[in-house]
Amino acid sequence: MVAMNFADQLYRRVLELRNPCLVGLDPHLAMLPKEFEAVHGDSATRAEVAANVVQFFKGVIEATADLVPAVKPQSAFFEALGVAGVEAWEEVVKMSHQAGLLVIGDVKRGDIGSTAAAYATAFLTGMRGTDPETLCDCITINPYLGSDSIDPFIKACKESGKGLYVLVRTSNPGSHEFQLKGEPTLSELVADAVNRWGKGLIGESGYSSVGAVVGATHPTDLAALRQRMPKVPFLIPGYGAQGGGAKELTPAFGAHFAGGLVNSSRGILYPKAKPGQHWKDAVREAALTMIEEFRALDLKPVS
Amino acid sequence: MVAMNFADQLYRRVLELRNPCLVGLDPHLAMLPKEFEAVHGDSATRAEVAANVVQFFKGVIEATADLVPAVKPQSAFFEALGVAGVEAWEEVVKMSHQAGLLVIGDVKRGDIGSTAAAYATAFLTGMRGTDPETLCDCITINPYLGSDSIDPFIKACKESGKGLYVLVRTSNPGSHEFQLKGEPTLSELVADAVNRWGKGLIGESGYSSVGAVVGATHPTDLAALRQRMPKVPFLIPGYGAQGGGAKELTPAFGAHFAGGLVNSSRGILYPKAKPGQHWKDAVREAALTMIEEFRALDLKPVS
Repeated sequence: MVAMNFADQLYRRVLELRNPCLVGLDPHLAMLPKEFEAVHGDSATRAEVAANVVQFFKGVIEATADLVPAVKPQSAFFEALGVAGVEAWEEVVKMSHQAGLLVIGDVKRGDIGSTAAAYATAFLTGMRGTDPETLCDCITINPYLGSDSIDPFIKACKESGKGLYVLVRTSNPGSHEFQLKGEPTLSELVADAVNRWGKGLIGESGYSSVGAVVGATHPTDLAALRQRMPKVPFLIPGYGAQGGGAKELTPAFGAHFAGGLVNSSRGILYPKAKPGQHWKDAVREAALTMIEEFRALDLKPVS
Repeated sequence: MVAMNFADQLYRRVLELRNPCLVGLDPHLAMLPKEFEAVHGDSATRAEVAANVVQFFKGVIEATADLVPAVKPQSAFFEALGVAGVEAWEEVVKMSHQAGLLVIGDVKRGDIGSTAAAYATAFLTGMRGTDPETLCDCITINPYLGSDSIDPFIKACKESGKGLYVLVRTSNPGSHEFQLKGEPTLSELVADAVNRWGKGLIGESGYSSVGAVVGATHPTDLAALRQRMPKVPFLIPGYGAQGGGAKELTPAFGAHFAGGLVNSSRGILYPKAKPGQHWKDAVREAALTMIEEFRALDLKPVS
């Protein structure tokens, strides 16, 4: 049996919780609270550091799981910890699911044919012996290699009900270098392809399970790309730490909140705690502040 | 102390062994020899399957390490096995180094800022507690996000002496979809960027440690891209299984063999053994056949 379409699951969670906020789980070791001694010391093993990372995210999940629809663990930071890091990744994904969160694996994979299929197995569908709770509901992927590199991921989504966010217009300052070249631009070509790739994966909500990554740092492009991809959910990085604010993002959502998830990593994970405040309370407060900023926008709560 | 520049290490190995052949380590489970029972059964755990994969590649490395300059493990297939797969990846990288092989990690990563730096840590430079023999000498990366996403990898290479291969023109049938769009094309823009990115990493051999992935399936483009990137070592997938033969690849090399590494995965790993022949002998024979095909080309052995 295929689970509910990812886009529909996300739609329901966003409307229930009345916000489009996504907590990015990026374990920047140097920024973790002081109580995590292994990450701040010089003598801990990678396994001890990884155990600290799991404990930290356990606290973050406890502080935010009733507030936001989804989390987005960033694979690179886990992979840097080697085998222990991948174990920590699986634990964090599992804890997130058990807390009722959707999990978007930020892995930005991309490869051809059977290799792309293996990445889909790794993160979306699993194999014999995989604990389904350690799999993601959705992952980010890179389109550079073309449609035949995306097909195996689409096939995995059709079989499993899971989703994808394709890099279209990234939030970094240098993203224009290739993404805005050509006429139509590379981003526009990829956007048109995202429409095609998602055609067979449109849910009851009207949204497709093939989404697009579009950076908060390019408000004009957000509006144009929203028009170009009307049924495509956006994943919007670059809010807060990288510059863009809530108001500038209004054109990205389309009809209502469910049109886009806005990621915040450092802003929620590593806020400055008030004197005497526990770091978990500071995390919750930071999440609530972001949520209120988006609830204050004049967007229809339901289509 | 910085190790020898990757391009120089590769140059030396290619000239010593008089061939540009690269063995791609892609564990397609269904294609492994019959003696690996866990991968063919229905009841093995992922750890048992991963142990089979390690044993298989141990045999492949024994059969080929004295013949070829380098191996290219493909991360996706290991990641599909979860934590046990990442353990197997580290073992295979370590065994390859101990056998004297250079290791090109085919990971196709790409992300921004601190995330790209974390991927460089994961695969090239390591952190406290990383066994240096489990790190790669070089990895493949994806340029879609632009120069600021490549900078952290370049920085890691400057510090460690390691190398990169950037996806320029991939071997898959759909690679034209984005890579040949625009004027100049996306591939040409990325090729020009590869020249820039490698400027500070040119070794005594005259080659840069920032290489380019250019598919064997596009002989005309190989020649044009060789002219466009004279100091850039090529990684050439798509030989054999995907179509291109040795002769068509001559224009890719430039002055001599050290200008390009030609990958073969299935052709070497899974040859049809003759009656009574051990699979390891069939693997060695397949490697020797490929090597002879390239030695027969009319290329200068030394510049």
